Amino acid sequence: MTGRRIGIGVIGAGAMGAYHVAALTRSVPGAEVVAVHDADPQRARHVAALCGATCKESAEALLGDDRVEAVLVASPDPTHAGMVLACLGAQKWVLCEKPLATDTVDARRVIDAEVAGGRKRVQLGFMRRYDPGFTELKRSVDRAVIGSPRVVHCVHRNPSPNPGITAAQIVRNSMIHELDTLRWLLGAEITSIDVQTGSSTDPQGPQLASIRVGEVLAGVEVSVNARYGYDVRCEVVGERGTATLITPTAVRTQIDGVESVPIVPGFVARFEAAYLAQLRDWVDGVRTETVSGSNAWDGFMAEVAAGAAVEALETAARQELCAPERPALYA
Amino acid sequence: MTGRRIGIGVIGAGAMGAYHVAALTRSVPGAEVVAVHDADPQRARHVAALCGATCKESAEALLGDDRVEAVLVASPDPTHAGMVLACLGAQKWVLCEKPLATDTVDARRVIDAEVAGGRKRVQLGFMRRYDPGFTELKRSVDRAVIGSPRVVHCVHRNPSPNPGITAAQIVRNSMIHELDTLRWLLGAEITSIDVQTGSSTDPQGPQLASIRVGEVLAGVEVSVNARYGYDVRCEVVGERGTATLITPTAVRTQIDGVESVPIVPGFVARFEAAYLAQLRDWVDGVRTETVSGSNAWDGFMAEVAAGAAVEALETAARQELCAPERPALYA
Amino acid sequence: MTGRRIGIGVIGAGAMGAYHVAALTRSVPGAEVVAVHDADPQRARHVAALCGATCKESAEALLGDDRVEAVLVASPDPTHAGMVLACLGAQKWVLCEKPLATDTVDARRVIDAEVAGGRKRVQLGFMRRYDPGFTELKRSVDRAVIGSPRVVHCVHRNPSPNPGITAAQIVRNSMIHELDTLRWLLGAEITSIDVQTGSSTDPQGPQLASIRVGEVLAGVEVSVNARYGYDVRCEVVGERGTATLITPTAVRTQIDGVESVPIVPGFVARFEAAYLAQLRDWVDGVRTETVSGSNAWDGFMAEVAAGAAVEALETAARQELCAPERPALYA
Amino acid sequence: MTGRRIGIGVIGAGAMGAYHVAALTRSVPGAEVVAVHDADPQRARHVAALCGATCKESAEALLGDDRVEAVLVASPDPTHAGMVLACLGAQKWVLCEKPLATDTVDARRVIDAEVAGGRKRVQLGFMRRYDPGFTELKRSVDRAVIGSPRVVHCVHRNPSPNPGITAAQIVRNSMIHELDTLRWLLGAEITSIDVQTGSSTDPQGPQLASIRVGEVLAGVEVSVNARYGYDVRCEVVGERGTATLITPTAVRTQIDGVESVPIVPGFVARFEAAYLAQLRDWVDGVRTETVSGSNAWDGFMAEVAAGAAVEALETAARQELCAPERPALYA
Repeated sequence: MTGRRIGIGVIGAGAMGAYHVAALTRSVPGAEVVAVHDADPQRARHVAALCGATCKESAEALLGDDRVEAVLVASPDPTHAGMVLACLGAQKWVLCEKPLATDTVDARRVIDAEVAGGRKRVQLGFMRRYDPGFTELKRSVDRAVIGSPRVVHCVHRNPSPNPGITAAQIVRNSMIHELDTLRWLLGAEITSIDVQTGSSTDPQGPQLASIRVGEVLAGVEVSVNARYGYDVRCEVVGERGTATLITPTAVRTQIDGVESVPIVPGFVARFEAAYLAQLRDWVDGVRTETVSGSNAWDGFMAEVAAGAAVEALETAARQELCAPERPALYA
Repeated sequence: MTGRRIGIGVIGAGAMGAYHVAALTRSVPGAEVVAVHDADPQRARHVAALCGATCKESAEALLGDDRVEAVLVASPDPTHAGMVLACLGAQKWVLCEKPLATDTVDARRVIDAEVAGGRKRVQLGFMRRYDPGFTELKRSVDRAVIGSPRVVHCVHRNPSPNPGITAAQIVRNSMIHELDTLRWLLGAEITSIDVQTGSSTDPQGPQLASIRVGEVLAGVEVSVNARYGYDVRCEVVGERGTATLITPTAVRTQIDGVESVPIVPGFVARFEAAYLAQLRDWVDGVRTETVSGSNAWDGFMAEVAAGAAVEALETAARQELCAPERPALYA
Repeated sequence: MTGRRIGIGVIGAGAMGAYHVAALTRSVPGAEVVAVHDADPQRARHVAALCGATCKESAEALLGDDRVEAVLVASPDPTHAGMVLACLGAQKWVLCEKPLATDTVDARRVIDAEVAGGRKRVQLGFMRRYDPGFTELKRSVDRAVIGSPRVVHCVHRNPSPNPGITAAQIVRNSMIHELDTLRWLLGAEITSIDVQTGSSTDPQGPQLASIRVGEVLAGVEVSVNARYGYDVRCEVVGERGTATLITPTAVRTQIDGVESVPIVPGFVARFEAAYLAQLRDWVDGVRTETVSGSNAWDGFMAEVAAGAAVEALETAARQELCAPERPALYA
Repeated sequence: MTGRRIGIGVIGAGAMGAYHVAALTRSVPGAEVVAVHDADPQRARHVAALCGATCKESAEALLGDDRVEAVLVASPDPTHAGMVLACLGAQKWVLCEKPLATDTVDARRVIDAEVAGGRKRVQLGFMRRYDPGFTELKRSVDRAVIGSPRVVHCVHRNPSPNPGITAAQIVRNSMIHELDTLRWLLGAEITSIDVQTGSSTDPQGPQLASIRVGEVLAGVEVSVNARYGYDVRCEVVGERGTATLITPTAVRTQIDGVESVPIVPGFVARFEAAYLAQLRDWVDGVRTETVSGSNAWDGFMAEVAAGAAVEALETAARQELCAPERPALYA
């Protein structure tokens, strides 16, 4: 049996919100999206209609609906922390799209609220932790076939930037995935970070970060204007060997003197399986009252590292991170 | 919304039956396995318990249960045709594991019964048609980027044979997938077939078929004792170029002077996504009263080709196939 | 030390002849092309000028030049056997481009002449035996890491056919490489062969051969009009695993949604290292009065198999080959 | 014709010296090693015997031999600059193994001497510039199919370190290849460099350099204790796409659930073709009195960058490089 039905409220009916609603409805047995809210009522109505949900005029109204047991937060980044705090206040389970917050103070508020509530309720949308490739990569690292990690190389390329995005926003929006990936793969905290950009006059140019996770060195390239396609790579170099993520492809062609495979256009195509597995695991977790995947503390620590990366960018100097004390709730 | 609940009966609670029951229950919203039958009551009870279904002492009892709207047939190969006929008699929707029958006469009976009933109700479990790789390969062929197909190469290797399996059974159990794949990819019928085996004293040795689909040539290797792993490949060579299926892998390692990727151990691991997509599509089809994927006629034609392949093996002579007339129901 | 100078005569100053002359001159220490003959005196003059050689008005004149110790035969296919016989008559060492002859009777004459002379003097230009990839493949087979071979798959595609070439000529000109490759890799003789072509009205269409080498099955595709590029592949399937030739490439690019590598345009680009290694080994062999690589017997047996393949094409029936007795000279 | 004989003296008969002597003798038409010197007379005798050369008791004696037109310097790194200066004094052509010197002052002396002599005579052994892969990569960059370079990723791994090698020596011995590669690929000078090491207590641990070449960012990993094999990689990311070096391999096997290719054990196996092409080009250059490949200025600039890298390591601070003025001789 699939287990009992879970009533879900969705806050934010933009592209990601709509995507999650479709996936919950079509592919997660027992998940029922019962309420949708968006600052733009028309978007909310549109998405609500797709799944037969009620449209709510405010987040408060959504949280006040007794059928809503769990909330998926996919509203704009700067609203995340506030929405999660409201959900915690209403004692709902939460899946919050990354980032948890856009500054450290807000992220800390979420931690404090969750700790005060005495239980973990918040999951962060670091969906890579559910990607078949990344999970297999982590298994390879954990099984120690390559020995203790010494170096990690990450590449994260998007074909085109969000218009007007700044170098700091690129860190919080894109590089934050690598910051979480490093913590998760290595089971350790980032200790220092330096970020170089190619040109001071092109804020959307590539960023090359040199990161330390204790004695492990990591090189991270983030390019939001890579043009040729979406490309996420990760290689872990251990004492005895390497383990490298393979980007999935289905068909290879040979035409006109060229052998080729297509490159996925964006993160939805690349991480479809991950998003789906994340939703399933989240809904299962609501049933069993547990949080798996990445939790609020992971969201907080990613934000701390992102803040240091932005500081490194702005001061052109490597930043040392001092690890905040981890509350017992996240031990 | 996921659409209305579909009550499903499962006939055959062996490995494939149990696998399908788990997948239906966990991953297909709205699918409810309500009844299970197996010749071995203990197996039936075990699987029924997993999904909260009722255990039925006979196929007839299962078919007599009004909650059963659709039936998944996963009993032993020689019983398939009989079970499907019974389902048709009871006006149920059917997903029958391949092959449709183990001889042409039985397969023909199913066709006749379905034609007499006036509508298509039977889907065959040629799950490759739902595999992301094979569907992308078919798209490549259909988009004609490689031009009209001229040659197809197929490889189908299993690590170890079912004990005591004969050369003829290998054709009906394994090569039948390639026979369907060729028909589906090319949208045309097999016109002749020759099969060579390595050694007359090793019935479980490799088979190499040389097949014609009109003017398209196909080479098919089927090895049930390949030992190193499960390996299914397909390349279509067109007038202008080639399109080749890529076997999915997640992580590459470099250790001890060797760079490697793992090979999947068997068809369940390789075709998990295909099996799941097939079940979803079948259940959706039951809701809309349509049959997609491969139908009874596909099952029949695969059996006709398999019969010719067995004849080629036994007579050591290429067999020409004369295409039976296709009933209007399958136009 | 590179060993003593070897004076070489070249018969045939077409594309292959010119290519060999350039390679001998530039890259084989101690090889000196001293005489060139071609039926077209202008071509001969052109090539002779490149290497400072004397231009000879006839093959006889070339063979009569005392400085000529060894002869490279690169004249048109139908003249090969006659030229080799003349060389043997003049007691020269010979490297003859494949094929040794264009019918079995002529090929037999060469064998008889060489046997009568009492020593091996003739090397055949089956250059694949010197390709780094093919030699590594043979090592893999010989080391038995994959167990005894059970199946071999060969693909041989040229981008465009010689104008007017017939199906029989395709066998003798292109497939003959695979016939030698099979004998060499497996260390055994071809025992039967069947060849299918796609369309009876397109003599230049793909050929698909189903070949037996004892209990080993081989599938061979030869396409002379593949258009997309030059592509030679070989996979050996053994009892325990497989070994597959990798086509060398240097750089992979990602542009415009596509990840790709270039495909070589033709056999010269693909087998440059093989041709060079063959020439070096031949010249070394002349110094030590030995023949390595493939010898006249290999050329004869390839012609026997090619003859059977042509017969199979023309009679649409599998041909059994009875192995001629191997003279002691080639034991 | 191969052109006139070039008499070559070899200084240093260790592993690299012996390797070059064998390659010159076997594979470079017209190259004649006539004299060999090594600080260890026995090594010199051993190598001299292989090629029929005279053994010289000192570099001076070798340089005084009139038959010696060109000198290959393969003695220990700290002696390079002195030997090259002596060669220049004797007006010999030189191929000097990298590095040109082990400090900037010595490297500068070579530049000054060559400039004083008024002509380029010195080639540096940055053999990657002759590697088929690297040259194809440079062509891809130069043809601008990927647009202007923005980021470069380099990996350089050796299976095991020279005993006792220090972090600074790793820079001058290994990373110096990447320093030259970046200058050569981008046609621009390194402007700043930072180097991180994993552990302050393991001088032989991985180094991760973050380098700027104007507005191009480069990440370079150098690991001398990678254990699994020798691995050199390079990816250039341009405005429109990427170009990536492919490591050549010959045969892929599938055995025991694993598909794999071998990894080369060391630089000789990996760069055999490059070393050979470098020797041929050098000898051709001696004939035509030109220097191609990398020259003394390239050797000097690589040393300047290596010096900055060592300084970065020792001070734990990014180093800016101010470009020295390039003498007209190297314009």
